[in-house]
Amino acid sequence: MHTLPHDGLALAFLEEQLLQPGMKGLPITEPLRQGAIGVQGWNVLHADTSFPVAVLKTSSLLHNLDWMRRFCARYNVTLAPHGKTTMSPQLFGAQLANGAWGITLATATQVQVAHRFGVRRVLLANQLVAPSDVKAVLALLRGDPDFECIVLADSLAGVARLADAVGTHPLARPLPVLVELGLAGKRAGCRTPEEAITVARAIAGAPGLLLAGFEGYEGLLVSDDRAADLAAVDAFLAQLVALVRSADDEGLLTGAEIILSAGGSSYFDVVARGFGQVGGLSRPVRAVLRSGCYLTSDHGTYHRLLGELDDREGGGSGLRPALEVWSMVQSRPEPTLAILTMGKRDASYDADLPIPLLYHRPGPGTPHPVPSRCEIFKLNDQHAYLRLPEGHPLCTELGVGDLVGCGISHPCTTFDKWPLLLAVDDDYHVRGAINTCF
Amino acid sequence: MHTLPHDGLALAFLEEQLLQPGMKGLPITEPLRQGAIGVQGWNVLHADTSFPVAVLKTSSLLHNLDWMRRFCARYNVTLAPHGKTTMSPQLFGAQLANGAWGITLATATQVQVAHRFGVRRVLLANQLVAPSDVKAVLALLRGDPDFECIVLADSLAGVARLADAVGTHPLARPLPVLVELGLAGKRAGCRTPEEAITVARAIAGAPGLLLAGFEGYEGLLVSDDRAADLAAVDAFLAQLVALVRSADDEGLLTGAEIILSAGGSSYFDVVARGFGQVGGLSRPVRAVLRSGCYLTSDHGTYHRLLGELDDREGGGSGLRPALEVWSMVQSRPEPTLAILTMGKRDASYDADLPIPLLYHRPGPGTPHPVPSRCEIFKLNDQHAYLRLPEGHPLCTELGVGDLVGCGISHPCTTFDKWPLLLAVDDDYHVRGAINTCF
Repeated sequence: MHTLPHDGLALAFLEEQLLQPGMKGLPITEPLRQGAIGVQGWNVLHADTSFPVAVLKTSSLLHNLDWMRRFCARYNVTLAPHGKTTMSPQLFGAQLANGAWGITLATATQVQVAHRFGVRRVLLANQLVAPSDVKAVLALLRGDPDFECIVLADSLAGVARLADAVGTHPLARPLPVLVELGLAGKRAGCRTPEEAITVARAIAGAPGLLLAGFEGYEGLLVSDDRAADLAAVDAFLAQLVALVRSADDEGLLTGAEIILSAGGSSYFDVVARGFGQVGGLSRPVRAVLRSGCYLTSDHGTYHRLLGELDDREGGGSGLRPALEVWSMVQSRPEPTLAILTMGKRDASYDADLPIPLLYHRPGPGTPHPVPSRCEIFKLNDQHAYLRLPEGHPLCTELGVGDLVGCGISHPCTTFDKWPLLLAVDDDYHVRGAINTCF
Repeated sequence: MHTLPHDGLALAFLEEQLLQPGMKGLPITEPLRQGAIGVQGWNVLHADTSFPVAVLKTSSLLHNLDWMRRFCARYNVTLAPHGKTTMSPQLFGAQLANGAWGITLATATQVQVAHRFGVRRVLLANQLVAPSDVKAVLALLRGDPDFECIVLADSLAGVARLADAVGTHPLARPLPVLVELGLAGKRAGCRTPEEAITVARAIAGAPGLLLAGFEGYEGLLVSDDRAADLAAVDAFLAQLVALVRSADDEGLLTGAEIILSAGGSSYFDVVARGFGQVGGLSRPVRAVLRSGCYLTSDHGTYHRLLGELDDREGGGSGLRPALEVWSMVQSRPEPTLAILTMGKRDASYDADLPIPLLYHRPGPGTPHPVPSRCEIFKLNDQHAYLRLPEGHPLCTELGVGDLVGCGISHPCTTFDKWPLLLAVDDDYHVRGAINTCF
């Protein structure tokens, strides 16, 4: 079990910064040094914070960090967790301190943020095309000999753009590029192995570029038929393995190692089994998983998908939901309706609406589980509509000023609504804060 | 026609701040003073910025500011535009300089932000219930004799919380409270005039509170049957007017004026007609509209609703969409599919998906309109899926590196994804930047 580190100069600066009144969740009327948050004695269950407030349960984070470190060791795979999920410097630091090889990111500006906070190896799992974005990444590589960034290409046009950029202003080392293999009807990526090999040859032949391996994203294969999904994932991974063998046979892969990467948060176990044992190539293979949502899981989509993953692994201690949004009942206008101080600005609504878990009258004691037939059925920008089961005692019990704790579905779209999340222990004492940089 | 002011100390500080590389949309590799953005010579159509980038068209903003000022003067109504839409200090400043009486907000932390940037009159159009949030608002009132904040209540429990807070630590002036009248099955607010009068009496009888008037939000009445919606809005407004008369007859309204407020961005013309002429009360009536989305309109929901509003007004120069998100084609994996560098992190997806408007090969010239059968049919966190019409020349023309400009539907959920938006002229030259504080 490792701890959450707060090291590096920029990270230290976050702790020293003065937070201004007006930051969501913070109950302050004067500027407060971020590092002092943990000693204010705030407890969410005592309604000491502002509401809504987003909290990260430290025990779950630590459990998940440790779980993933052990998982990767077991399968001989490398982790470059997707940082776009949290965009949190402190969480990047915790992931790197717990065995992550690098951080995966989606955009050039995300790479700039990560670099500023000390991340020194990035897998930019995306096509890098805009001139200013190419320039931004190359500037980091030129300015910092310790920085590594691997990018994707899925077209000759994309390769030409990268080749031109490094051709004009050469780098000290060639820019590593992975060819993206895609899926018919899905997102980016070459649609056939033939196209992928053509792109691979272009990279291998371009001065200043290095063909570092192949990449795909199987996480788009989520349908109502999981057996079919899993078969499609297996087939896709096999196609990627065949591709890397074919490129190696052709001598296109000339780096010190060969990178083979896939793995969102739905099927990274399948990827680990599919990629962890690939051998017999001219160079060692590094199988890189990119799950971002393992770190916090959730109470919706990823809870279900990671539960299935845990079952495939034989069941165990599983990944634990770490992210909750707490709000307050602001209105009880009808017997079965409570309006909460939380809306689209505060919680994910793309996969599912927030899931009410607990309610509590502020003060001592432990919160009660919300009855299963309670649901949030609508969000406005700043309000949630909580439906109470008709005739349930809660219809009279739940009052204005009571707290409701919600789980969310899809952490990425909750993190991006909070510049600051509060880290809490199991009793909801506030122990610190975590920044995001979206 | 007024200009966009940038005054006040905190606002001036925004212009002086050093922006770090990694801020979405900014093509910088070194820190840049925000005030220098307008002299960099960047043009979105030349792909000088990072992508995606959110832009505000200054000419449309100015048109809309002026349109609304004239509209309010015509109907003798007051504007307190909802600031939660943009949470932008510069846009608050522009609204106040163009006749707005105050800024409407939804949460205590939003009030703190607005106060810091010089807003001195806030309509907090929400129940204020959490102790720390009550304390935060009262602290602003205690610390600044020039600051005014009006809040809502819709329950005796809510009134008691406010009365207790001002009872413990009295304010120099009583806290003005509006009673919220609601709609059956909808959000907060008393469900009957009787309940509303009961709450009004409690406010009038509480030392330290002032019954300032009544409030409702008719904007929830949007269905597929607009004629029925408009009839329901009329009935709701009539109920509010009857309520204020009844409270006035009872002598509950003892302030210098009586506030009567409604008006989201769908029907504020109906509200203006319904409230602008209310008289015969013991005190002058101030009819306060709260539209937030008039400022930027959009290319979706509000374009349609504001178009209907314009038709009801007899048709005219209308409100103009001011907000666009531009991204780049990063992959052309299939003949009818383009993947754009823009996703759920960058554009609204709650009302409609982004609406592709223009495409352009970076460089001189003007962008082309996107054919009507093009549509964005899916967003991931960081990607958009653009479907091209089968057989259309665009299927071969549109290439990796081309730009696509999109309109959005529901400005509130695009603003909150951008800490910084770029202000552009009609030729997409970048003239400055606008901050948001979510």
